[in-house]
Amino acid sequence: MTDPSSPCDAAHELISSARVEGTPVYDRAGEKLGTLHSVMIHKVSGQVAYALLTFGGFLGVPSRVHPIPWEKLRYDTHRHGYTVDLSRDMLENAPTLSLDAADRPSERGYEEALFGYYGSSMFW
Amino acid sequence: MTDPSSPCDAAHELISSARVEGTPVYDRAGEKLGTLHSVMIHKVSGQVAYALLTFGGFLGVPSRVHPIPWEKLRYDTHRHGYTVDLSRDMLENAPTLSLDAADRPSERGYEEALFGYYGSSMFW
Repeated sequence: MTDPSSPCDAAHELISSARVEGTPVYDRAGEKLGTLHSVMIHKVSGQVAYALLTFGGFLGVPSRVHPIPWEKLRYDTHRHGYTVDLSRDMLENAPTLSLDAADRPSERGYEEALFGYYGSSMFW
Repeated sequence: MTDPSSPCDAAHELISSARVEGTPVYDRAGEKLGTLHSVMIHKVSGQVAYALLTFGGFLGVPSRVHPIPWEKLRYDTHRHGYTVDLSRDMLENAPTLSLDAADRPSERGYEEALFGYYGSSMFW
């Protein structure tokens, strides 16, 4: 049950997979880094494994996306978006995916390198 | 780490939120009940709360979707879809949502009634 005094509006605790696209992502200082392109969901547990961040791109059309382990994202109910405690430099140097590949499951080795880069553990 | 002898291909353990749409759902006997329209994701934890099942509809365009608590779905790696241990009657008598409302967060009361119908617990 939700604490009625919680600032988090219960009616907005969920988001449709059809609307994930475009959710803003901010750095710790509140500067917008980009938006979510999509999320990768573990089929068995239903847990999001990682999110794909896009910075925008040429004429607003991104060519590559930046996968980020889900545990690095904190939902900010006031900004209606996610905050990551990562610098733009760290993101820009992180493993990326081409947009073509972003909606397909990745190689295990790629995901291990990705989670290793961020010091995160793979739960699957 | 994945057991290399597992029949579940590690490369297919994840699915993009952009591809969830259309994943088939079967009953216990293996009959196809419908397909996933989308899933509702808890913004903070990244855990899928419930899936929206569509049976199809007039000329293939559904007008209503059937939300099902995530815990009721079991991923079947051989069928590449989900199995639910629910009869079509039970699904047809369950709370539904209009397709217009399906990509918006629902009222708390609706979700409580939905999870109560299926005897499931809300984790959020």
